[in-house]
Order: sequence, then structure tokens, then C-alpha cells
Amino acid sequence: MNKLIGITMGDPAGVGPEISLKALCNHKFTDSAIIFGTESVIRYYMELLKIKMELNVITDIQDFKAGHINLYNVINFDFNKEQIGKVSPVAGDAAYQYIEKAIELAMNGAVGPVVTAPLNKEALHLGGHNYDGHTEIFAELTNTKKYTMMLWSERMSVVHISTHTALRKACDAVKKERVVECIDLANEVMKNLGITHPKIAVAGLNPHSGEAGIFGTEEIEEIEPAIREKQTEGIDVSGPVPPDTVFLKAAHGQYDIVVAMYHDQGHIPMKLLAFDDGVNVTLGLPIIRTSVDHGTAFDIAGKGIAKDTSMVAALDLALRFKENMNK
Amino acid sequence: MNKLIGITMGDPAGVGPEISLKALCNHKFTDSAIIFGTESVIRYYMELLKIKMELNVITDIQDFKAGHINLYNVINFDFNKEQIGKVSPVAGDAAYQYIEKAIELAMNGAVGPVVTAPLNKEALHLGGHNYDGHTEIFAELTNTKKYTMMLWSERMSVVHISTHTALRKACDAVKKERVVECIDLANEVMKNLGITHPKIAVAGLNPHSGEAGIFGTEEIEEIEPAIREKQTEGIDVSGPVPPDTVFLKAAHGQYDIVVAMYHDQGHIPMKLLAFDDGVNVTLGLPIIRTSVDHGTAFDIAGKGIAKDTSMVAALDLALRFKENMNK
Repeated sequence: MNKLIGITMGDPAGVGPEISLKALCNHKFTDSAIIFGTESVIRYYMELLKIKMELNVITDIQDFKAGHINLYNVINFDFNKEQIGKVSPVAGDAAYQYIEKAIELAMNGAVGPVVTAPLNKEALHLGGHNYDGHTEIFAELTNTKKYTMMLWSERMSVVHISTHTALRKACDAVKKERVVECIDLANEVMKNLGITHPKIAVAGLNPHSGEAGIFGTEEIEEIEPAIREKQTEGIDVSGPVPPDTVFLKAAHGQYDIVVAMYHDQGHIPMKLLAFDDGVNVTLGLPIIRTSVDHGTAFDIAGKGIAKDTSMVAALDLALRFKENMNK
Repeated sequence: MNKLIGITMGDPAGVGPEISLKALCNHKFTDSAIIFGTESVIRYYMELLKIKMELNVITDIQDFKAGHINLYNVINFDFNKEQIGKVSPVAGDAAYQYIEKAIELAMNGAVGPVVTAPLNKEALHLGGHNYDGHTEIFAELTNTKKYTMMLWSERMSVVHISTHTALRKACDAVKKERVVECIDLANEVMKNLGITHPKIAVAGLNPHSGEAGIFGTEEIEEIEPAIREKQTEGIDVSGPVPPDTVFLKAAHGQYDIVVAMYHDQGHIPMKLLAFDDGVNVTLGLPIIRTSVDHGTAFDIAGKGIAKDTSMVAALDLALRFKENMNK
């Protein structure tokens, strides 16, 4: 059987259930994806969104039925509109359990890629799960040590040396070994997306890439040696390219992917260029994981107005991985 | 007399003379601007570009003639095409002298705004003038201590806490006093451009603006106190706004100007959004100074193919300052 995509519906109080349902029933994913979530929440949103398709609630992947909204019912709890838009331990714990179950089934081969809807960090912590976010959960539950966050869009993609850390510490994280790791992960993911000879750019850390050491030495001491090492292995990698021009060049097609030195170096241009259709991908995992590029949006949850653009993009990208990797 | 705009033609070996001439004769600036440069270079480019207008070479602003290409001939030297695209002390020194003369005349009131074409830093140093660039020359020659670099475009503008310094040192430069200074400069420049109540955003330094101190404390210790101080004075200033969303919000009209914490935080989004028509402005000077947003482009100099888009934008902005400030 062609493996199904698992969609974890995220925090039940956020926009996750709504965008998961919208993406499933308005688009081409009905026969290839299944939601990991809670029946009461999904029924609430099917009514709100006036979805006519039938719901198939299962706890065994073998019971999947094409042409239905398929729900893997991970955990039951009562749900009503009072809970929408509110931080709660029940919702935070449920969001964690959807992910845990999807990862378990992906690791044992019962499902293929996992696509995640947003969770709320505060609720997650209240629910007893002390993680920074999805990425850390996936890394721990799959026992992965070398990983990075990719932001993907049709126009360009970016991987990050570091993400959720103070900028001063992000400077410390720019080490040759980590740059090499991220070049490898960038190269691998582009190949997994069907690009035979990926063109990779590595950004500098400092303004003008340090201008030959005048504005910082990380380029000379850490970044350039990593690039040279990978070039001798035949990888098409350039840089360090000055941070203020590398993304423009990538957006114009000169590079397929950019290795960014810190969170905002990569996030600022990606949010500008791909605000609606950006996809967040965790690289280095033994399973494929893509995700929407936005948060729980508690302020608009339950109103039926959340856009599923990013969820559709995340599902499309998961499909593309599947096709290229035959998973 | 309505004061003239002085255009310093930049390094004679770069694209400066060409874009200065193109902007003057193809557009509406002929009767309001004068080039500070060298006659032999301007005559060479007038022939290359087949410019039919007459050249009026002067060394006294009183001799300006409307309907001509007006050149304030600062320094003479022989010029031929062999010199194009090459770093030389003669060119570097000449570029400096154009600026020095324009500033002198602006300070004594003989000319109004100064618009600068690009110079080459290496040539400048070889020519005996040890500055990082235009900004430092203007600051020193006008005895200015509090200044900042603004990047301006129709869609949004950015001022910078620091510019040409290593990222680690840029983190050290995020101090309350400097943030206050930059909010004041941002507020003042927007008013000088005719915006009565400027909406100012201050970006955070760290990812997610530090997420309440988890990823760095500069927001709590330095940035927030500066914002609160300025808010109590009635300035419409918000933040710290997470760096990866503030520029999108500004581009969509939520803010008129953003205070960026370091060079690339401001330069990455501006280069993406306003690559062709960005203007560089030095704020805090006793005179108006705008500049093209690009370098000498030695690789295309002398070919007649350089675009004057950024020079035209810099001249337009200088005119707008003049009109609003009656200078």
C-alpha cells in the first residue's frame, strides 16, 4: 500500500483542526492523508464548516477508507466552543499525543510523512511536555542528533545553523563542524526533492561577510573551511555570500538553498517572500516531517476564516518528498 | 534662489559619472542639480552616451545655467578609458575632493542637499583618506556625533543601531541610549518627509524578540525601556516587534519606519523589497545627504549600460526633503 500522510491536527483550541479539515476536503489529499486528532473536535469543525463528506473514525491504519475524511482518534475528551482560543493543559497534552502517535506509526512504517498543524508552547508545557516545539519532540522521539530547520518555498529554501537561541549564542554556534552538517543536510534534502545537482549558498555571519576579517572573523575561521571541505567532495556550494544579497540571488534562481547563520537571517527573507505558502521542514530525521509556517492563531480560531494555504503547501511538499523518495 | 542639489560623481573609474549624467539629462533634475566632479571625465561620458546638451563648467555656483549640464569642476586630471574599472589613488583622492567641496558649499549655504554617487573604499584609502565610507566623511566634516544610516524606499524605511561592525559587537551596541537616539532620528526624518505623525516600529534583537527573556535579555533591559521613554513623550513607537515579522508589517503599511538592531536585519529586507530604487540617507547631519544604494560596479563601468534608477530615486528623495523642509 502507498503509505498515508499523517496530519497531526495541533492544539485543539487553535486553527489546526480547521485548516487540517479544509485541506483534506477541498483538495487532492482525501485519499492520501489521515488526521491524527480527537473525534469531538473534528465533529465540531465538520459541522461549523458544513462538510458533507463522511467521517471515518479509526484506531488502526488498516481501516482507512478512501473518499472519506479519515481520523485516527488518538485521545477522547469533551469539546465545546468555550475551549476555543484558550490555553489549556488538556489541549496541550492532546496536541502532544497526536504527534507521539503519528511518530510511532511513521517509525514502524505504518504511515509515511508526518505533517503538523500548530501547537501552543504554553499549553504544551502545562500539559506536562517540556519541549521548545515540534522540532525538539521529533528529534527526541526519533533519537536524532543532527538536524536543522528548513523553511521551504517554491522560490527559495533556507536551512539554519541555529534557531531558537539568543543572537549572541547564535554567533557562538557558527562552527565549522555545524556548517558542514548543514551543507550536507541542505544537499540531501534538495536531492530528495528531485534536484540532482543542488546549488547551495552559505551566507556570511557578519555584514559584507566580514569584509576580509575587518568586521568579524567567523567567515575566515569557520565558514570558509567548511565550504572548501564540501567543495572538494564535489558539492556545488558557494560562499560565504554577503547576507544582504544572498537571498535576493537565491530568489532569482542563482541558488536552490541557502545555509543561514541564525534564525532571523533566514526567517526575515522567507517571511517576506513566502508569507502564505512557506513550509517548515525538519531535516535529518529518519521520517519526513513538514509543517505549516504559522502559529495557532487563537484570535481567529473557531471562526471558520483560517486559511489553509500553508497546510496545503506542507501537504504538497510531503507528497513531493514521497514521490521522489518512494516512501 | 532655490538652492541647488549637489551631486558628487563618485569614483571616476566606476559607474558614478555615467549614472549622474543619465539622471541629469534624462529626467527632471537639469534645472535643480549640479555635478561635483572632473571635466575630462564628464566630457568622456557625454561623448560615450551621445549627450547633446551643452556642458557648463563652473567653479562658482553663481554661474549655474538652467537648461545645461552643470559641472562644478573640483579637480582636473587626464582621463581615458584605460582608467575605467581600476582602483587608483588619483581616482580615490578625486572622489574625496568632490565630497569635501560639496559639503563645504552645503555648510555655508551655497548648495542644498548633497546626493552621492558611489566611491571605492580601497581607492579612497590609497588616495590618502582613511574613512569607512561616505557616512564617516560626512559625519567628520560636519562635526556630527549622533547619526545613523537610513535605507529608504517607497514601501518602507529602516534606520540602523549599528552598521559596519561584527555581529557580536552589534549585539553590544544595543543600548538604551542608542535606541532612544535612533527613535528620535527616525521620528525626525519622517516628519521632514512630510509625515506628521510617523508610526515607528522597533525590532527586537533576538529571535521572537527574546520570548520574554528565554532567548536573550536585550529586549527587556535596553529596548523596552527606550520605547517606553519615547512613548511617554508622545511618539507613536511600538515594539520590540519580532524581527521576522516587523518588516512584513512595515511593507504592508502598518509602520512608516523600522529601527533595526544591526546592519543585515535592516539590509536583508530592504534589498529584497527595494533592490533597484533603494536610497541610502545619513540622518543626524546638519545637511541633507542621500545616496545611491549600490557600489561602483567596476565590472560594468564605461559600457554605457549602468542603470540610473537608484540615482534618480536619491535625487527624488533629496527634492522631497527640500520641499518639506524649505531648504
